Amino acid sequence: MSEVYIAGVGLTPAGEHWERSLRELAFAALEAAAGDTERMLGGRAPAEVLFAANSLASQLSGQAHLGVLIADFAGLRGIEAVMIEAAGASGGAAIRQAYIAVASGQVETALVVGVEKTTDTIGGRVNAAAATAGDSDFESVQGATPAALAGLLMQRYQHTYGVAHDVFANFAVNAHANAKSNVNAMFRNTLTRESYTRAGAVADPITMMDVAPECDGAAAIVLTSRPTAVRVAASAQATDTLALHDRPDLLGFDAAQLSTGRAYRMAGMGPDDVDVFEVFDAYTVFAALSLEAAGFAERGQGWRLAVDEQIGRDRRIPIQTFGGLKARGNPIGATGVYQVAEVALQLRGEAGANQVSGAKTGMAQCIGGIGANVVTHILQRA
Amino acid sequence: MSEVYIAGVGLTPAGEHWERSLRELAFAALEAAAGDTERMLGGRAPAEVLFAANSLASQLSGQAHLGVLIADFAGLRGIEAVMIEAAGASGGAAIRQAYIAVASGQVETALVVGVEKTTDTIGGRVNAAAATAGDSDFESVQGATPAALAGLLMQRYQHTYGVAHDVFANFAVNAHANAKSNVNAMFRNTLTRESYTRAGAVADPITMMDVAPECDGAAAIVLTSRPTAVRVAASAQATDTLALHDRPDLLGFDAAQLSTGRAYRMAGMGPDDVDVFEVFDAYTVFAALSLEAAGFAERGQGWRLAVDEQIGRDRRIPIQTFGGLKARGNPIGATGVYQVAEVALQLRGEAGANQVSGAKTGMAQCIGGIGANVVTHILQRA
Repeated sequence: MSEVYIAGVGLTPAGEHWERSLRELAFAALEAAAGDTERMLGGRAPAEVLFAANSLASQLSGQAHLGVLIADFAGLRGIEAVMIEAAGASGGAAIRQAYIAVASGQVETALVVGVEKTTDTIGGRVNAAAATAGDSDFESVQGATPAALAGLLMQRYQHTYGVAHDVFANFAVNAHANAKSNVNAMFRNTLTRESYTRAGAVADPITMMDVAPECDGAAAIVLTSRPTAVRVAASAQATDTLALHDRPDLLGFDAAQLSTGRAYRMAGMGPDDVDVFEVFDAYTVFAALSLEAAGFAERGQGWRLAVDEQIGRDRRIPIQTFGGLKARGNPIGATGVYQVAEVALQLRGEAGANQVSGAKTGMAQCIGGIGANVVTHILQRA
Repeated sequence: MSEVYIAGVGLTPAGEHWERSLRELAFAALEAAAGDTERMLGGRAPAEVLFAANSLASQLSGQAHLGVLIADFAGLRGIEAVMIEAAGASGGAAIRQAYIAVASGQVETALVVGVEKTTDTIGGRVNAAAATAGDSDFESVQGATPAALAGLLMQRYQHTYGVAHDVFANFAVNAHANAKSNVNAMFRNTLTRESYTRAGAVADPITMMDVAPECDGAAAIVLTSRPTAVRVAASAQATDTLALHDRPDLLGFDAAQLSTGRAYRMAGMGPDDVDVFEVFDAYTVFAALSLEAAGFAERGQGWRLAVDEQIGRDRRIPIQTFGGLKARGNPIGATGVYQVAEVALQLRGEAGANQVSGAKTGMAQCIGGIGANVVTHILQRA
């Protein structure tokens, strides 16, 4: 097993890109990552394999086979290329496959590109497409969208732990505060607690300010066995039941616990070693549950980290440091790649106004479905 | 790098399964593979990761996230699981990822299950869904289905090499002859050269007897680093342009050449060492081009192997030994797994009436799009 490093990252603005297609977005991210890699390694690093991450293109753009589409458009004809799908966890899952390929010694350099397009789609049925991440025979067939299912989870959280809706406010407020200085963020406006409280319902108790906006975007990273500034200290994945109703313990977020636990063991670390944690805040309640599952709070206490303002850039556990899904935006299959790239920038000390000072170890976690598939990466300044 | 072996295979009948869902088909294949593995290894082999291969479920069944769906339904909650998509090459691509995971030493045992469902679908638009494997902006948007594009390729082959349509007949005839004794084959009837000649047009010059039937099916294999009867001697993949019109050399089948070349180098072999070759005969012209790309015939001469009846079970290069895509059926994302499982049975000497006598080395190749993504595996009797 070789050590695996992040040679370069490439980010494009998350948002509505009516004028750019899937392949154009993906290429922009790969080009940015190639430039960054050249700067970091002092030369080019020809890749031998491309892993594409995407969730909805076959449904929304009539385009499957994204491995070839992107390799071809990026001028990489002949290269090995494949697409990885794990709903919202697709980006992290693709990084994990690239990690294994490099760690195995079979390739020196692997490309990962996550891309998603939710504008200019066939029929504009983004919600219906996203619902295919749930159980088609028992959930989506009943009309249960991801937000509807997350609403049930949030209701259960509030009921079990006896907390009001507004204890989640700071997860959204923190995201918007951090997005302000991120040029790639979709929403760079200030969100106040008052605006959070007044937001309209999506799926009770989830409001417009609890749910991250699905959007277009592409991000790329280059993994290599050549030592560079950031090392991948752990890569882990775990699953839970697909359907929410099949879980013996709704609030356990078991796959997140398993996935984080495996990553901690692999890296020989625990939560106290983590300086920055990119959580998958597709819904504010996910942020609370992820913080609990990863050991930053006792069970039922994750919301307190928000209420006590312990999630800011200079506090106990900085999360959503570039705006998180809530304010950077959630380009579904690409999100996991954004997260790992953002953590890499933090560890390099290149996060600019978003820098967590002295960050040496960072964790990124992405989630498919309602906690059904969770991929965790721990990165370390080499 | 560990050596990688095939511990077990599980096949289900390819065909129309109106009464069985995706998860049920996948589970049946996994269960069969688990039984086979237990018999081969003399005990159970708990898997640590599941790779699902599928091409169309998000479009045709409203179900993405198949890694979790199948892991959950198979009682493997918690396991790492992901889905691999590479159109018709999905099955081979999933096996390749599992191969890398086992070879890397990170896991001892990996499961691969390919599953596809083309009956009981949303709107019944199988052709439109399959067309997403092409270039959405330049091919499928014009109404070009896979068969239409393969028709252009076949026209070019006939024009360039000056051969009539009926030189391809024996590819279809051989497939049906071999499927007769395969209980998992969709079409077990005899096909005569006369019937081939009289078949109705699909996309000129392709007729009903040139194109393999898309159908339902599931197949599973278990890969392990524990030595057993069949070793994976090579695993390789390569891509070409996605769109047919972008190829400088239409008849080069470049990705197949590259993919096979990489596999030969990895195994330290050439075509003369291969005793059985499961080609991806989605169209008869693919069989001719694959035989040429893999070195079994000179360029432009692949059709002669059919005309000269050199593709039968006791002839120069046995192909489609269980019926191929044409007669076993083509459950798209699952097909690559069927192929590798069939080669494994040949090398074990367990192919029954379909046995190629004395087979020690076999090759399986699957193709996504019109030769855009090609995965090749070489297996060897250990």
